[in-house]
Amino acid sequence: MSANPILAQSVRGNWVENRHRGAVCVSDSEGRIQASVGDVTAEIFPRSAIKSMQALAIFRSAANAKFAMSDEAIALACASHNGELVHTELAASVLANIKLDEHALECGAHPPIDPAARKALFARGGKPSALHNACSGKHAGMLSVAQAMGVDTKGYSAREHDVQKAVRACVQEVLDYELTDSRCGIDGCSIPTWAAPMNVFAKGFARMATGKGLSQETAAAARVIFDAATSHPFLIGGTGSFDTEAMAAFGGRLMLKFGADGLYCGALRDSGIGFALKCDDGSVPAATAMVAALLMEIAEPTAEQARLLETRMKQDQINWAGHHVGYLEATEAARIRL
Amino acid sequence: MSANPILAQSVRGNWVENRHRGAVCVSDSEGRIQASVGDVTAEIFPRSAIKSMQALAIFRSAANAKFAMSDEAIALACASHNGELVHTELAASVLANIKLDEHALECGAHPPIDPAARKALFARGGKPSALHNACSGKHAGMLSVAQAMGVDTKGYSAREHDVQKAVRACVQEVLDYELTDSRCGIDGCSIPTWAAPMNVFAKGFARMATGKGLSQETAAAARVIFDAATSHPFLIGGTGSFDTEAMAAFGGRLMLKFGADGLYCGALRDSGIGFALKCDDGSVPAATAMVAALLMEIAEPTAEQARLLETRMKQDQINWAGHHVGYLEATEAARIRL
Repeated sequence: MSANPILAQSVRGNWVENRHRGAVCVSDSEGRIQASVGDVTAEIFPRSAIKSMQALAIFRSAANAKFAMSDEAIALACASHNGELVHTELAASVLANIKLDEHALECGAHPPIDPAARKALFARGGKPSALHNACSGKHAGMLSVAQAMGVDTKGYSAREHDVQKAVRACVQEVLDYELTDSRCGIDGCSIPTWAAPMNVFAKGFARMATGKGLSQETAAAARVIFDAATSHPFLIGGTGSFDTEAMAAFGGRLMLKFGADGLYCGALRDSGIGFALKCDDGSVPAATAMVAALLMEIAEPTAEQARLLETRMKQDQINWAGHHVGYLEATEAARIRL
Repeated sequence: MSANPILAQSVRGNWVENRHRGAVCVSDSEGRIQASVGDVTAEIFPRSAIKSMQALAIFRSAANAKFAMSDEAIALACASHNGELVHTELAASVLANIKLDEHALECGAHPPIDPAARKALFARGGKPSALHNACSGKHAGMLSVAQAMGVDTKGYSAREHDVQKAVRACVQEVLDYELTDSRCGIDGCSIPTWAAPMNVFAKGFARMATGKGLSQETAAAARVIFDAATSHPFLIGGTGSFDTEAMAAFGGRLMLKFGADGLYCGALRDSGIGFALKCDDGSVPAATAMVAALLMEIAEPTAEQARLLETRMKQDQINWAGHHVGYLEATEAARIRL
């Protein structure tokens, strides 16, 4: 296997310290690669970057109609949120709406990602619950699927459960690709994740954005999901989240979602292209620099949007004593053009 | 620049998710490379991995004698400690011994690395101070140098201060290599760090371990420093630290020190060889897998020592819900032999 190119690097003082390799693929809905760098046929785990595809099962099971799920609930199903109050209260209300509570969640508990929310929780003597888990909205959505299907909610996160079978079928339809158990793992939040080629995810996001190649029902659901996510960017991440800030800045044109271990997937809705990106070593800050460089080239940013992208293309590094010690930056190789 | 080989990778379920490249060099005291993989002539920042070399300035300035510094104080000067009580109390006593306190430290404050120490600090309403900084022992040592030299302690962390000039001279003597300001940065704890080729650091650690090639005074100081560090492994790191556990397990034979951004340096004292290692992307867990694989090959471990190394060569990954989701492991390429 030849090495992917260096797409981000960190500089300390006047010397490069760390190097991050990766690959990026931009595709249209028919799988025609519009721009790429690195090995885009490598099979990668999509992790949380494809929550919007997984949310299709909410529509396939008619949970959205049966439980009159709000756009906010749909957006939160696509989120890796910071565990701020708006996120946890919404997750709790989605569960209450289906006669369940946080004890039904199988994602596990962790402290809120947002430092202020974490501090506030501990200051009032609270304990992290599964509601604070970044994936609680997705899990609440999956529990809604279970309730709509009339199946046992217990074990809904397991690969062999009907909920995960439904989710897998939805993702396979969008990707037009058969997921195989020979390339499967358990995600951080305990649901299965299947690997597929990076270019397939890029194509899938173009299909989600355009509806092209999808059944009429799936295309309609994809539109509702992308509308919900791009209209409620704060629910997708929260304070300081690049997904949140970028989607807010691009005002509905951009669908963007990071995934753990250095992933980004998304789409430019008006140009009908999808993209997928992975940093080989799993660094999220490096992947963020890479995707900001990508958007700078392919998203035709306004001056204001470009200023936001620049904050992530070159991320200042400050040490404990407050000294500016260097920066993490996308390399020229990351600036691929259509 | 051709890519370094993949020396560690993480596996999720049954598929590789992340790949970590790197280089490793093993050298004798004359710079003859005994084993290597990757580009070992690349210039890297040594960061905290060379604190034992920087501690030579304590002897060069006669601070050790003037202030009757204990072996524990010398060991702590070589440490990146967890901020546990034994570390912070010792750092405070080193400072009290030179008529200073934590306010003289220029390393900045951060919460203790050890989770129990962090929890205990916050539970009693305490605030992180510079004593909790992983580098407080090194900084207390550098302040001892300033006091022994009779120079102003203020600004002791700056490149142009007499203390850092003395530290630089000591490191240059051990490395037999001129450090240049054209490859210099500020470390996380605010002192300067200069890049040099990886093989030069490996040779330098062999020289520290054997005294060969060093002046009589420097060789004697190096011996005291390595004896202090290897005799007090808990002071070098703390609970759960691989440096601590490995040095304790090898009972004085092994000097080992990690550095931020995926570094390890060390020496096998009985065989007179030094080593240096860097993970290209800066991952410390990946670098730990790499150095454990290296020690498995070059350190002739006993069965018990091998069991410790195995815990780091293959590190289980557990998710928030307690599921075993995969592991981070050193690759075959990392198992270089003498």
